[in-house]
Order: sequence, then structure tokens, then C-alpha cells
Amino acid sequence: MEFKISKEFVKELEQLIQNKDDQQLEVLLNDLHHADVAEILDELDFDEATYIFKVLDSEKTAEILLELEDDLRENILSRLSAKEIAEELDELDTDDAADIIAELSQSMKQEVISELIDVEHAKDIVDLLRYDEDTAGGLMGKELVKVNENWNVLTCVKEMRAQAENVSRVHSIYVVDDENRLKGRLSLKDLLTTSTKTHISEIYINKVTFVNVDAEDVEVARIMQKYDLEAIPVVDAMGRLVGRITIDDIVDVIRDEAEKDYQLAAGITQDIEASDSILELTKARLPWLLIGMIIEIVASFVLKGNEGVFQKYSTLIIFVPLLSATAGNIGVQASAIVVQGLANGSLKEFSRSYFSKEIGVAMISGSIISLLLLGYHSIMYQQYLVGLAISISMAVVILFAATLGTLVPLFLHKNKIDPAIATGPFITTANDIFGIIIYFGVAKMILGY
Amino acid sequence: MEFKISKEFVKELEQLIQNKDDQQLEVLLNDLHHADVAEILDELDFDEATYIFKVLDSEKTAEILLELEDDLRENILSRLSAKEIAEELDELDTDDAADIIAELSQSMKQEVISELIDVEHAKDIVDLLRYDEDTAGGLMGKELVKVNENWNVLTCVKEMRAQAENVSRVHSIYVVDDENRLKGRLSLKDLLTTSTKTHISEIYINKVTFVNVDAEDVEVARIMQKYDLEAIPVVDAMGRLVGRITIDDIVDVIRDEAEKDYQLAAGITQDIEASDSILELTKARLPWLLIGMIIEIVASFVLKGNEGVFQKYSTLIIFVPLLSATAGNIGVQASAIVVQGLANGSLKEFSRSYFSKEIGVAMISGSIISLLLLGYHSIMYQQYLVGLAISISMAVVILFAATLGTLVPLFLHKNKIDPAIATGPFITTANDIFGIIIYFGVAKMILGY
Repeated sequence: MEFKISKEFVKELEQLIQNKDDQQLEVLLNDLHHADVAEILDELDFDEATYIFKVLDSEKTAEILLELEDDLRENILSRLSAKEIAEELDELDTDDAADIIAELSQSMKQEVISELIDVEHAKDIVDLLRYDEDTAGGLMGKELVKVNENWNVLTCVKEMRAQAENVSRVHSIYVVDDENRLKGRLSLKDLLTTSTKTHISEIYINKVTFVNVDAEDVEVARIMQKYDLEAIPVVDAMGRLVGRITIDDIVDVIRDEAEKDYQLAAGITQDIEASDSILELTKARLPWLLIGMIIEIVASFVLKGNEGVFQKYSTLIIFVPLLSATAGNIGVQASAIVVQGLANGSLKEFSRSYFSKEIGVAMISGSIISLLLLGYHSIMYQQYLVGLAISISMAVVILFAATLGTLVPLFLHKNKIDPAIATGPFITTANDIFGIIIYFGVAKMILGY
Repeated sequence: MEFKISKEFVKELEQLIQNKDDQQLEVLLNDLHHADVAEILDELDFDEATYIFKVLDSEKTAEILLELEDDLRENILSRLSAKEIAEELDELDTDDAADIIAELSQSMKQEVISELIDVEHAKDIVDLLRYDEDTAGGLMGKELVKVNENWNVLTCVKEMRAQAENVSRVHSIYVVDDENRLKGRLSLKDLLTTSTKTHISEIYINKVTFVNVDAEDVEVARIMQKYDLEAIPVVDAMGRLVGRITIDDIVDVIRDEAEKDYQLAAGITQDIEASDSILELTKARLPWLLIGMIIEIVASFVLKGNEGVFQKYSTLIIFVPLLSATAGNIGVQASAIVVQGLANGSLKEFSRSYFSKEIGVAMISGSIISLLLLGYHSIMYQQYLVGLAISISMAVVILFAATLGTLVPLFLHKNKIDPAIATGPFITTANDIFGIIIYFGVAKMILGY
């Protein structure tokens, strides 16, 4: 079951805040999961949310801080002293603490770090801050359970009980050598069912999937999904175990990536949500609208240049929308398949066989569409030469759109740019402009004007 | 590290298959993870893949079967007898076994079920087959560890060791009453660190997030991501514990949902991949191309109807592409935000405040774009009245496109249709046709022809 926020509940909270009834607020909120409290705080205004935040105790508020929407968290952090922030961070796992510190200003970062009580914890956090946020290093936490390959089961279990106190989820116990290099793993089940004098080296599994500290976050997600892992160890260039990534962080990566790709495909330039303000939404959407407008003004020139034929071959002009729409659709389809193929690994890089396949699809679709168009035009308007010109240019435009839609994302990907930019308004607008140029070019050739 | 398939390796395997060198094949493949072997088999042709499948031993092949691409799995299953399939299924967890049986024909299903050796296992699988594949029931497996609330820790641990043999991943131990109703949960850590005489009822956590057997798969995914869960218990209408869903299945749900939405936004009607054949790719893409074509033929009628003005007001026609493109872009942006909002829960249903926000964005963007257009037209072509007509219709079209882009997904969602259909070619084409009608309508009113 899930806790559902109701309007009445929110009103009740607002009332309690006004009356400064801290005790009742605690009663209502202390038993809720931190993710639910965060959802509630997101529904209140900043002042009310901050008030409640200060009322609840520190063990809970740290986790709540993580789940808040970015702007509310930023607001609350700006109202806390370095010492207060450090108190929150002392309660969090290293990867979460690092994520929050990374959002602070440079000077604030330093202050907060100096206020951290647990020195080991502080060292770990500082370590993690070195990594890019889109890499395994940026996702990992230092909390993990590891044992030396030379120990026996008894020593292992003792060490484990000590280490496991700080580790919220224990999946595998990692086995390292004297230089801390990752050698393998053990499962809790194995440990519990083996006699205590046995040496670890006899029972551990020496095959363990790991990632390098520089691996891209989406790459880590792909590997964890492929092997159905719930946690994956992270090693540095020397093979030493430096951290661990858990599946909950990867689920967030997968969702965020999907949302980002989807927004790029819709021509939205920043990460926005339905709950953002009118100004933020407009700011994120205007760029592509204006870019599209400018490119289509070029289209207006091409049309102006051909205006002599509007009278003579009037059907030429009335099929321009059909042409643009078809070119746009084909381009978007082609690029979507490439982008997805690159994302899930089924398409490696420029693949001649895939490109020929796409040309094949374009030729079949193009032939069908052109023939239907020719048939339709001949029946409706006769003017068979014009109909032929229109159909042939349609076929050429379709081939062109499919080619562009396939090559552009591959080109972007090769140059380390997110290929998802190539889907959406970018491709539809580019195909519009090239389509119109090709259309009138081919028509001119065939009709000879 | 991840196993990487190289062309040479594949060639080597093909050679060994030709020479029927079963022993060497086993040597090369037996140590690989089943996900890697599945990837390799996907690179071979059907006959070669089936050959290797029969060479490897059954414990491994069952897991490999799960990871294969749909068409290869279908092919291999069609070549196995009911008894052979049942042998594979005896090795799998109930949820995976149920997924595979569901793919078989009705008669084959019955045969295979009758050949299953483990009767308990068979009963569980048959149970699971009752549920829709897009629900919690369709995702869950029967493997879980549960204890009665009236037991003490000693009994618990004994029971656990017995049950845990069949459970590959133990996260929480579920606590049920005498009627098998879910009461709470225990962690392994808690069990190991509590004295054996303690009663379970004193130590278990009575707050446990669960889902109903009918819950939608994307809803389960949302809840598990929100609460950072790695497994979630599933209950029936009476609150009885009937199964468990693990995070790896949810990760697949999230990815599949993202891929599906993305493909819908690109106007692709079936689940296809870069590796599919030309015919499959064409079949999935042609529908929307043809639908788009038919709708744009309607657009050609509107244009034909207005062809009298092409000569007199030539600038009217040259801005039609700009109009369509802008209307399309705005519509796609609007619908993408709504679809995402509905998916991640930040937008509940039709929300008057959100709709007003969208109208606000449309009005601001519309004003900016119309004014820019008016300025540009006045400078380039003078004909100020025509310029005014164009700008005003542009503003109206933008407002209309934003409204359509917002309302259509909400309407689809309310009627239990996937709102993601509303993004992509559906919205761009609809906006094209309405845009052109509105455009000439407004122009006609202002210019009075």
C-alpha cells in the first residue's frame, strides 16, 4: 500500500504550521516513510516546508532532503548553517552525502566538510567528490563489506558483523587481496552454510562483474540490467576495490535517461516538469521553437523563388504539407531506431548492413507512398506529368530523409554528442527544408520550367 | 569487466559447430554467464544457435532461454519436445517459467505442464498463468521466504534455511499470520543479531509496502523506485501473501516502457529493433506514414480551396511550412510534458492549474513568435495587412496546438489508452491539418476574400 496525499491532509498541516503545533506535526509525520514526507513537503510552499523540516528529527530529515525536488532542497539548504548541513550529512551514506555537497557553493562545501563529525566519513565523501557525476565514480558509495582472501570463515563472519553495521544493504561480500585488489565475491548464504574453519580462498567465487571508476553511468546501468545485478563493485585503474553501486541508484539513472531522451525528442532543452513555473517551461521550450522558425523562413524563400509555378502547376504547392509531414515522419522513425539501438547496445556504430537495411525500408515505403500518390493525383487532377513529378520527388525526399535520419544520430554518437538530439524537431525541421528544396528541384527538372 | 563478443570468436564457434566439436564448444562456453551466451547465440543463425543450445547442459540453457531475443527463443522452443521444455522449466524460478510457458500454444502449454516433474513447482506456475502479464500478478514469482508471527527466532532460522534453498535472492523475510495474511517483515540482519528465544512478534517491522495482485506494472515500478525497494510482496484481495516481485524484473519493465514510449513518439507501431529484418521494420513503420499521408491529403484540399489567393497574397502560402512546423513543435512539447507528468505521478489528471499554465506558456511563446513574424514580414514584403493576418493566425494556431497537445494525452489517459500515442506523428499531423484550416480561416476573415 502506498501513502496517498489528500488535499485535506495538506490543509491540516498548513493549519498546524500556522498554529506552530510542533507536537501534532511530529505525531502526524514521524511515522511516514521519508519519500512520502518529501512528497508532502513538495506540495507546501517553501516557508512551510522549511518549518516542518526543522521540526522533524535529524535522522529522518537527512533522507527526506535527498528525495525533495531540486529547488526546494536548494532553498532549504540555503537556510541551514554549515554545521546543520553537516549534521544531516553525517546521517547519510557516502554517495548520497557527496551528491548533496556537490550542490553547494565552493566555500559552503569547505565549511560543511570541516564540520563533519565522523572523520572517516568525511574522507570518504571528499574522495567521492573527485569523480564526474555521470560516471561510476560519481554514482558509487564507499559502504560495502569486504574480506581478505587469506582469512577463514570465522574471521570473515566477525569482520562482517562489524562492517555490516554501516552498510544498509548487503548483497555480496567482496573478496580482496592484501593490496585491496578485487578478487571475487561471496554470498551471505554461502557464509552461513560453510564450516567456520574453511578458508575463504576455497569457497569464494572468483568470477565477479565489476566496472571501472570512469565507466559511463548508462553503461553501468546496461551491465547491471544485463546480468540482473543488485549491486556492482567499482575498481580503479589498478584493480583496487574503491566503491559499490546499488541498483536503486541505477533505477534512477535509467529513469532520468529515459526522461531526458524523451524531452530531447520533443525539442525541450532543459529538464522540466509539469510542476515548474510558466517562465521555466517557456524558457526550456522557446529555443527550439525559434530555431524551427528561422529554418522555416529559409523554406519560405525557396517557396517564394518558385512562386511563378503556383498558378501553372497548382497541385505542386498543395502537396507541400504532405511532403514535409512524410519526410519528417520517416526521419523521426529512422533516428528513433538508431538512437535506441545505440542505447541498448544492439547497434554498435556505423554499420553498413544496418544502413543498407534502412535504405531498403525507405525504398519499399517510398515506392508504396509514391505510387499511391501518383494514383491519387492522376484520378483527382489528371495532369499526369505533374503527378509524376510529385511522386518522383516524394520518393527522392523519402530516401533522403531516411538517410539523414540514420546518419545524423550515428555521426553525433561518434563525436560523443547525445544522439537523442537528432530525434524530434531537429530532424523534422531539417527534413522540411531539404525536402522542399529537393521537391522543387526535382519538379523543375521534370517539368522543365 | 564484461565479456565482449568479437567477430573472430563467432567465426571460431561457427567452425566448431561445422566440425561438430561438442567438447571444445562446451569448454569455450560453459564458463560464460548465461546473458553472454544468449548474446552470442543471437549473433548466430537459428540452426547454429539450436545446435549449441542442445550441446550445453540443462541448468545453464534454462537461464539462457530467458535472455534470448524473442524470435530465436520461439524458434528453439518449436524444436524442443514438451518433455525437453519441461526439463528447462524445472530449472527456472516460477515467474520466469510462467513467462516462457505463456509464449507457447494452448495445446503445447498443457503438454509441458503435464511433463513438469516438481508438482509444487507446476502448481505455482499454473497459478501465475492466470494473471495478466502487465500486472503485479504477471510479474511476480512464488519464491519467497515467510515465517509465522507466532514463531520464535530459532524456529524462524530453521525454516528460513529450508525455504531459502529455493530462493535466489533473500531481501526481506515476510511475516504472515495463520491465514497467510501479510503482517510485516524482518531483515536477515535482524534475525542474525537477535537472541534465539525472542518471539518474532516482538521484533518484526509491521510497516511493509506491498502491492495488490492487480496493480499495473508501471505502478509497481513507480512504487519500488519511490521507496528504493529491491523486492516487494504481492497480496490478493484478502491481504494474503501470494508472491514477490524483484527489482531486476522492474528494471526490465522500466526500460521496456521507456522504449515503447519513445517508439510511440516516433510513430512506430510495434516493438522493433535495429536487428530486425527489412520487412519487419517496414511493417511497423508504414502504418503511421500512410495515416499521415491520408490526413495531409485533407490538407491538400484546404490548400486547393484557397488557391485563388495564391497569386494575390503570395506570402500567405510561403509561410505554411513555418506554420505547420511551429504548430507541430508546440504540440509535441506540450504533450511530452503531460505524458511524462502522468508517468512519474507529478500530474494527476486533468488539472485546471496545469492547463492554465500551458495556456500561459502558449500565449507568451505565441506572442513572441507572432511579433517576430510580423516584424520580419513587414521588413521583407511590406503588405502590412497580410503580415498582420499571418501573425494573428500564427498566434491562434499556437494556442490551438498547445491546447490540443495538452488535452489529447489527458483524454487518452482518462480512457485508459496509453497517452504516449499522442506524442509524435499523431500530434504533429493533427496540428498540421487544424493549423492550415485555422490559418486560412483567420486570413480570410482579416483580408476579406
